[in-house]
Amino acid sequence: MSKTDLFLKAAIEEAEQGRERGGIPIGSVLVYQQKIIGRGHNQRVQQKSVVLHAEMHTLEQAGRLPASIYKQCTLYTTLSPCAMCSGAIILYGIPHVIVGENQTFMGQEQWLKEHGVRVDVMQDKHCMEMMKAFISTHPELWNEDIGE
Amino acid sequence: MSKTDLFLKAAIEEAEQGRERGGIPIGSVLVYQQKIIGRGHNQRVQQKSVVLHAEMHTLEQAGRLPASIYKQCTLYTTLSPCAMCSGAIILYGIPHVIVGENQTFMGQEQWLKEHGVRVDVMQDKHCMEMMKAFISTHPELWNEDIGE
Repeated sequence: MSKTDLFLKAAIEEAEQGRERGGIPIGSVLVYQQKIIGRGHNQRVQQKSVVLHAEMHTLEQAGRLPASIYKQCTLYTTLSPCAMCSGAIILYGIPHVIVGENQTFMGQEQWLKEHGVRVDVMQDKHCMEMMKAFISTHPELWNEDIGE
Repeated sequence: MSKTDLFLKAAIEEAEQGRERGGIPIGSVLVYQQKIIGRGHNQRVQQKSVVLHAEMHTLEQAGRLPASIYKQCTLYTTLSPCAMCSGAIILYGIPHVIVGENQTFMGQEQWLKEHGVRVDVMQDKHCMEMMKAFISTHPELWNEDIGE
């Protein structure tokens, strides 16, 4: 299994942990020098949080880091990052984002690219199926999470 | 005192609370139907948070709200909102942002406007002086907060 596949798998495991606890199944990991330095999943249900999307929870778990570290990181996320999470990526200058899929939700990938962020989308079937199942069974929770 | 001045004053009081506890002096309030429904200030120092900028802390304190509420809110913030906070404003469809000042830091106001958000900048002297004093005495903390 490639490193990319391994780290995306870790993000998927985060999403699955969220789902098992009744949460929104989106997960993320932050990778620096081929090691995971932060991991997290959406906390809307578990922590009643409106800001801890998976990517934000991951950044929070990684803790306060110097800009020089962020600038060498890759962020993995199971779903295309929304405006808030894309903004956090731009704020901290994370240069590379690997996205599980963008078929069930298209975030601000274009804006990320305009800011020089490399965005690779894997169109991973497992990620897609996980989100499709969640959206069809919990449409109101999903809409709340994307401000609709 | 006008309502706008009153709510900006409440955001400034939040910033001052943060400063008194050794934090970064940026504050915010969320207003719905002329009432404050959320308030907060930057939590980088106090909670070791990298995501709880003042605006994010305010949204978190306001709790989980339906999209229909956000769409009638005004967000007050003592400083021009960064990419992350602007992304959160766009995600939740908050239509109006009142900014204390954008002279010490210019955030993503243009991007907000492109998304139909009304942005009013007060160029408030108190807000400016508070940030100038903070940046000159704590440049490393300030740079960390804006990913530099």
